[in-house]
Amino acid sequence: MKIVATLTLAAAAITMAAPAQAQFAKPEDAIKYRKSALTVMSTHFGRVGAMVAGRVPFDATAAASNAAIAESMSKLPWPAFVEGSGVGDTKARPEIWSDAAKFKAANEKMQAAMSNLATVAKGGNLDAIKTAFGPAGATCKACHDDFRKE
Amino acid sequence: MKIVATLTLAAAAITMAAPAQAQFAKPEDAIKYRKSALTVMSTHFGRVGAMVAGRVPFDATAAASNAAIAESMSKLPWPAFVEGSGVGDTKARPEIWSDAAKFKAANEKMQAAMSNLATVAKGGNLDAIKTAFGPAGATCKACHDDFRKE
Repeated sequence: MKIVATLTLAAAAITMAAPAQAQFAKPEDAIKYRKSALTVMSTHFGRVGAMVAGRVPFDATAAASNAAIAESMSKLPWPAFVEGSGVGDTKARPEIWSDAAKFKAANEKMQAAMSNLATVAKGGNLDAIKTAFGPAGATCKACHDDFRKE
Repeated sequence: MKIVATLTLAAAAITMAAPAQAQFAKPEDAIKYRKSALTVMSTHFGRVGAMVAGRVPFDATAAASNAAIAESMSKLPWPAFVEGSGVGDTKARPEIWSDAAKFKAANEKMQAAMSNLATVAKGGNLDAIKTAFGPAGATCKACHDDFRKE
């Protein structure tokens, strides 16, 4: 999907362009940004979930659109987990920084699952979307269990 | 730009798929969502602005990436200005709903200016980016002046 490739490249370019810390003037700016990106992602992911759960009638176009936006958003939050942004209005656990490799693996797994969901959703088959949705939701939960405070 | 076309279509499809109100379970969800989308947009727009103002060295790739993300985000907030979401944790003025045509024109003008900035930024010329940035910033300010409380 072009949108995925473009946003992935965009995110990579931003990450390379400057150290992550330099992207945010204050830790609270980084916190607000990453929470915002995750809110937008979860809104669109949740709309796919509502169809998967049968709470909303299946609409193939809407499912594909929402999954594409969720996937795009899934690339954005991670550079905002800058050192020193583990305090304040955040549920981030210290393990995000003390076990950075595990955190990176977890968020990469989520991005891959969101990417798969977006690809599958383009096909317009609800059963296939259901199959892809579960593992994507599981990656959200896994990361929250390990890296987000209650 | 493919990303623009894709996200524009995605946003249009979502808008068509269901009445805006049905997209959010509660008015506060709509408020949180639109503020989040605007936060992500303004973060990336601001990174272009930092280069335009000379506070950060010009990096053509980063400028293009940030402008592309800002443009993508500029499509998202509007369906979240649902009826009944003018109270609570929001600075939205009642004119958003009482003068809906003017609000729509203002946000369409902003989207067009962001789209232009993203197109220009792909060209990698700082002077051209400066020329496109000012009017885009002016559309943010105009809408805030008319439709956002102090």
